[in-house]
Formats: sequence, C-alpha cells, structure tokens
Amino acid sequence: MRRKDLLDLQSLGADEITYLLDTAQSFREIVTRPVKKVPTLRGKSVATLFFEPSTRTRTSFESAAKIMSADTYSLTGTTSSAVKGESLKDTMLTLDAMGIDAFVIRHGCSGAAKLAAEYVPNKPVINAGDGTHEHPTQGLLDLLTIRQVKGRIEGLTVAIVGDILHSRVARSNVWGLAAMGADVRLIAPPTLLPADAHRLPVTVYTDLEAGLEGVDVVNILRIQLERQDSAFFPSVREYARLFGVSRAKLANAAPDVTVLHPGPMNRGIEIASALADDPEIAVITDQVTNGVAVRMAVLFWLMGAPPA
Amino acid sequence: MRRKDLLDLQSLGADEITYLLDTAQSFREIVTRPVKKVPTLRGKSVATLFFEPSTRTRTSFESAAKIMSADTYSLTGTTSSAVKGESLKDTMLTLDAMGIDAFVIRHGCSGAAKLAAEYVPNKPVINAGDGTHEHPTQGLLDLLTIRQVKGRIEGLTVAIVGDILHSRVARSNVWGLAAMGADVRLIAPPTLLPADAHRLPVTVYTDLEAGLEGVDVVNILRIQLERQDSAFFPSVREYARLFGVSRAKLANAAPDVTVLHPGPMNRGIEIASALADDPEIAVITDQVTNGVAVRMAVLFWLMGAPPA
Amino acid sequence: MRRKDLLDLQSLGADEITYLLDTAQSFREIVTRPVKKVPTLRGKSVATLFFEPSTRTRTSFESAAKIMSADTYSLTGTTSSAVKGESLKDTMLTLDAMGIDAFVIRHGCSGAAKLAAEYVPNKPVINAGDGTHEHPTQGLLDLLTIRQVKGRIEGLTVAIVGDILHSRVARSNVWGLAAMGADVRLIAPPTLLPADAHRLPVTVYTDLEAGLEGVDVVNILRIQLERQDSAFFPSVREYARLFGVSRAKLANAAPDVTVLHPGPMNRGIEIASALADDPEIAVITDQVTNGVAVRMAVLFWLMGAPPA
Repeated sequence: MRRKDLLDLQSLGADEITYLLDTAQSFREIVTRPVKKVPTLRGKSVATLFFEPSTRTRTSFESAAKIMSADTYSLTGTTSSAVKGESLKDTMLTLDAMGIDAFVIRHGCSGAAKLAAEYVPNKPVINAGDGTHEHPTQGLLDLLTIRQVKGRIEGLTVAIVGDILHSRVARSNVWGLAAMGADVRLIAPPTLLPADAHRLPVTVYTDLEAGLEGVDVVNILRIQLERQDSAFFPSVREYARLFGVSRAKLANAAPDVTVLHPGPMNRGIEIASALADDPEIAVITDQVTNGVAVRMAVLFWLMGAPPA
Repeated sequence: MRRKDLLDLQSLGADEITYLLDTAQSFREIVTRPVKKVPTLRGKSVATLFFEPSTRTRTSFESAAKIMSADTYSLTGTTSSAVKGESLKDTMLTLDAMGIDAFVIRHGCSGAAKLAAEYVPNKPVINAGDGTHEHPTQGLLDLLTIRQVKGRIEGLTVAIVGDILHSRVARSNVWGLAAMGADVRLIAPPTLLPADAHRLPVTVYTDLEAGLEGVDVVNILRIQLERQDSAFFPSVREYARLFGVSRAKLANAAPDVTVLHPGPMNRGIEIASALADDPEIAVITDQVTNGVAVRMAVLFWLMGAPPA
Repeated sequence: MRRKDLLDLQSLGADEITYLLDTAQSFREIVTRPVKKVPTLRGKSVATLFFEPSTRTRTSFESAAKIMSADTYSLTGTTSSAVKGESLKDTMLTLDAMGIDAFVIRHGCSGAAKLAAEYVPNKPVINAGDGTHEHPTQGLLDLLTIRQVKGRIEGLTVAIVGDILHSRVARSNVWGLAAMGADVRLIAPPTLLPADAHRLPVTVYTDLEAGLEGVDVVNILRIQLERQDSAFFPSVREYARLFGVSRAKLANAAPDVTVLHPGPMNRGIEIASALADDPEIAVITDQVTNGVAVRMAVLFWLMGAPPA
C-alpha cells in the first residue's frame, strides 16, 4: 500500500483512504501541542510550486512539512521561472536535480500534477489543486472532519452545494465520500453543474430545499464572484437567495447536521455569517486544523514511512 | 506583568517598558554572536502578515523568531488570501486553526492589529505598524538605543522632526518617551502636525532651529516623497531647506546630541548624508541591531516566558 | 587563500578555483543523501537579495545554505525596500546591522555586487549575477561538471555558443576555463559578440559549423527571446537555423562531445529538445546538482572554513 504520488482520490481505495485518515488522526494531536516539532522528515526537502495563489493551502503544506522538520522551498507563479517561460518539465527536472525530495503543486490546468509527476519518476508529487480536476488533500481533510464529528462516513448523506462545475474540491469529495460508502448529493443551479454529473456516483438536485432534506452533512462551496460576469448565475444577490445556506434553510436537514466550507468564505453569499460562526453546526476551523494533520499524513506516507 | 498582545506603547506602563528594554538588552549580545541560535521558541510558529510592504521590519521580526528557533511563515498583501477577498477575521481564524502560535501584523488601517487580536483570543498579536496609529516595537528600539547611548531616558529632551501627521513611529515614540520621563518636542511644518497634537504630552515647534535648541536626542522621520503632490509641503527642496537636519542645523543642540532615524532614509532630504554616516552622532545602525533584540524580547514576553 | 567575497572568476587563480572545485566535489555526495543536513553553518544567516527574478539560482543558494543548517532570508526586487526607494547602501547597512552573516546578490547592473561588498567590509558577498559582467558560481559549476565528465579541464577545447554580448555566464566561463588551461571558443553572430571580444582569452567564430569542429565541450547559452525586437537577430527561426545546436550540428565535434546549458532552456531554439534530453551528451541536470554543491563550497569557503 505505497504509492509514488497523490494526484486524486478517484483512484484511491477505501483501504488507502482509511490508512491516511488514521495516520492523520494520530498526527492531529501534534498540531495543537505547545512544541510542534517531530524529527520525522529531518534533512528532507519539500518544494511548493503554486502557479495559482493560495495562502491557506500553501501555508498548510509548509506547516505540515516544518512540523516534521523538513526544509521547505516556496515557488510561486510570479516569482518562479515561469517568468522566463521555462516549461513545467524543465522546472521539475531542475528542482529534482537540486535534491528536492517532494513536490506540492497547484496549477490552473487539470492534469498538471500528473504531468509533473511523470517528469520526476523517483520523487513524490502531491496535487494541491489542478484546474477543475481534483484537490485530494482537501477531500481527505473533509473526510477526516466528517469522521471525527459523526464517528463514521459510511451510510451518511452528504450534500455538496454550489459551483460544482468549476470545483476540484467537489470532485475530490465525491470520489472520497463514495469510496467510503456515503450517499452523495450535488446541489447547484443547472448552469453550475458539470456535463458529466450523471456519470458521477451522486444524486443531483437543482433545488436547495429538496437537496438538503435529511442530509447529515452539507459541504458548501465557495462562489467565485468573478464568474458572475460570465453568466453562470444572474447576480450574487440571486445566488445568495436561492443557494445561500443559512440555519433556516437547514430546517429539514438531519437535526445534528454538520456544515463544512473549504474556505475562503464569502460570508452572506454562499453561507450565512451566523451559520459559519455557529459552533454547534459549523466545523470550518476543525477542517483547517485537520488540513495540517492530513498533509502531514500524506507527506509521511509518500516520503517518510519505512517501505513495506 | 503579562499581556496577550503588544498593540501600542500608549497603554504600557514604565515598569513594562523597562522590563522589555532590560530583556532586549540581555538578548542583544546573541544578535552579534558568531552562532546566533537559542532554543527558546523551538517548535513554536510565528506568522508575519504584511498588508503593506516592509522588508526591514519583516526581516527583523523573522530574524528575531529564527534566532530563538521558531518557525516563521511569511504572508504578504499580494500573496495572501487578500487576493481572494478573504476577510481579516477569516485569515486570523484560519491561521489560528493551523496552529500558528503568534502573529505579527502590519496593515494600512489604524486599529487593524487590535481587531486581529480580538479574533484570536488565545494567541499573541504584535502590531508592526497600523495606519497612522502606532509601531510599538519601533518605539521600543528607539528607547533602547537612547538608553544605551545616554545611560537613561528620564530627564532627556528628545525632538521628533518631520511628518508627525502620518507617522505611527512618532506616536509610539511620544508615548514611550513620555512614560519613561523624557521631555518630548515635535518639530514639523503646521501641515504635517496632527490636529490633536496639543493633547499629546509634547511641546510643538514649527521652526526647526528653535525646536533643536538644547536637545539631547533628535529622531528624524522619513518624508514620504509621494505626499508632495498632496500639498502637505510645497516641494522636496523646500522641505529639505527648512526641515532637513544636518550638522550645521544641530549647532545649538546639546554638545553630545544623538541622531536617530527609523529608516529607510531619504539622504539629502530629511537627513544630510554626512550626518547619517557620522558615527559620533548618528546611531542608525545601532537602532537596527536593537530592533532584532527588542523583537526577541517581545516574542519572549508574549510567547516564551514561563507564566508568572 | 581566503577572500572576503566571490565577485568574479576573472580575479581568481587556478589554485583557488581548484580548491573550490575540490571542496564542491566533496560536498556533492551530501546533496543526494537521503538525509541532507550537516551542521556546518548552524546559527549563521544568509540573505539572498534578488533584484532580478531567478527561481533556480535563488533556490540553489537557499538549498546550499539550508543543507548546511544556515537560516535564509529571501529579499526580492518587488518585496524589498526598493519599493520605498532605499539605496543599495542602506539596504546593505541595515541587513548587516540585523546580524546577517552573508549576502547573495543578483542585480541588473554590472558592478552592483562589488559595490554591495564595499558597504559591508566585514561580511562576505557572493555575486549571483550582475548585469552583463559575471556569474561566478555558474562558471564554477560548469567547470566542475566538465571536470567530472572529462577528468580534467586543461587542454580541452570548449565552445560557448550564443548571446555572448549580454551573457555574464559566458564571461565567467571564459575566465574560469582560461585560468584552468582550456582553449575557449566563442561562437555567435557578429551582433551578439561583445566589442571587447578580441581582448578576451578566446578564439571567435561567427560560423557555428566551423566553431564546433573538434570541440570537447559545448556550452549553449540561453537566447533572450525579448531581444528579437531589438534587432540583435532577425528572427527566432533564423537564429535557430543558424546557431541552434542539435546532434546533426555536432557531427564534426569530438566523438565524446559534452553539451552544457545554464538553463532555463528554450527547447527547439538554441538547443534541440532531443539533444537536451540525450544522457550520452547532455549533462544539464548534473550542472544543477553541481550548482548546489558549488554554492555549498563557496559559502563554506567564505563563512565556514576555520581561518587559515
């Protein structure tokens, strides 16, 4: 049960996901210790290559690496050799030759992480979001958070609400949840559903009220406000009215419904601010803490665990 | 004598300031050691959030943290989630949940650091400059530098020259110097004095020569050259002639007058280049070294000292 | 045999170059170890000041420093005090006063590293590329790579092909190769040759075929595509046809000819993609690995070696 890369959740089995969640759970305590430092990856180096900006994901990976004593190198779209037009291939070959031990890649093109992984056949590559494809560590941290709150994933009904079409978070959630035995619903206006939605292991709803009926978990996606001009939805106000989630909209969900959001939130648009801050329902900061633990588990799995 | 945050010098007592100066003095030797590394904050993490650029202040804080073995995370305005429109509240909650132990914040809005501190009720926030309000570690390093040169602060006459109106450095100096018993003068053209100057514990001068008479210390502020267009002063040349400080202008100051500047300097404008480089009078590089020691003391005070 | 700075290869003797190559060779094994961490520079700090962007060179220096346990500080053109218009002098004095132990500088102006070195008379400055002058660590890593492949440098014929006029890599190669006893050829269109080419210890060719005859090593320079508009060469296609190097163009080179490229490559322009990937001829990734080893050797030489 050892892989070179983590590129998606679609190809992972329930046994691999369970192993990663168990490992992350055992690491979680380290993240909240007064002294957050273990020697697991001492003398190893992790490069984060972010061709799209994301403070929270990059910092989460850097934190996971540094807690395990790895050295980190941060390369971003604007400061990287992309300025000089170097190809992804040569960037990977160069960093590989410098002795970088693992790569965390975010890129605007679906498939970029897979391509990068092929260029470094002996080094792990972790997909931190590629186009509209997948964001597997986000999927894993959502699974871990759900498992902590509910004690299980199997048999739960989980609704993913919002811009499914452009969301790699949605896709990683769908595959991870399905592998672990949850019933998955997608709730979105028709313009924000992918053309292949019927081929995913999900039930599709275009009405929020109907979709939220009886759900155990709601994962609310971020709306990209800049898409408004592209006619995916008529206006932010309209979207908030029809698909924004509040406590009132959750009236027919399970009584102990749990709300997740991958962040950053548009408070008052896709999620009501009071709901986001309700400690009985929302577990958004738990997701963030779990994110560091999950990334530690993934780095450990790919870099640090003794070979089986 | 323990606080959660360092947001200003206005609310600090002489006992607290003295404690910080004494601690900084004891740390200063570490900064100039061949091997600059102590384990004080090992396994702790410090995030610098700079919504305004400042290499020197950010590097000084990072240096203070790294010398004490903390891990540092650098988030800047352009690379931070500000790009995605995340609120300061959610940025703080997210970094808190990631396990960041302390926050250093620079922000263009007065009060931003205080607001940030309220969002993380269990973690220290250090104000590294908020709008035109305060820049307390700059005030402390100025106090430490003065105390090193003069042996005391009480009873000294200290003039602050320049753009008082927009200067958080001036405000932190005023409160710190007043608390420690110095006589403070503000010297500026009327357009660069704040409306509330008469409520500060200072004497105001609008004539450089009169203001410098008999002073023990002169702290020369940086002129923001871009303000010239805003009619705060008629021209750089005019400003330099009337308020630029040189050795000649210091003729009636105390014979052992000491000159400070928070940097970065506009040589030949607010300060004559020869004066800036005069080791008998200017202590500008001492300020920089003291800056690292002061920031170590503040981090130690808020993060590292065993609870009283 | 101890210097304060490494500003160029022109002023280095063969004994110094040999010492650096031998030291780098002994460090090279560390770069490929599973645990890449030695305590050599623990408690020391290295600042990289890049006024021009370069991920690969900056990351290589940071990697060299971190492998030897130094703390690193990264200051770039856009985030540095250059924004506020601080002079190079005051930037150097400030970082010096903060306790930075060594400086790595890349700057668009020839001579900038030398100037910087004068501002910090007690600290080492390493030139990471200054204008069109020199890039000495690139020259050293090219020498080390050649010595590894050929077992020697003396007596080899080495051709440097491309934009010699604007290339600090070419200049550092010329001086280093000449000092070590190689025969150096420059091959370029007349518009891309420097006016002083005849004063360099080289033979000049303006015809690629003639220049490559019998050469042991070819070092292919990167073409700055943006120079096309400046009439240095008529078109990229024309340049690629006349001066692009492929296996076919190497027909009359030595049978065991070796190809170097400092990167980042324009595949299909100055170098054929198949040639760049040919492990029998091209040693481009070896150059990158040697780059880290060479920078470790330089940092050790200037910072870490016990005084002679």
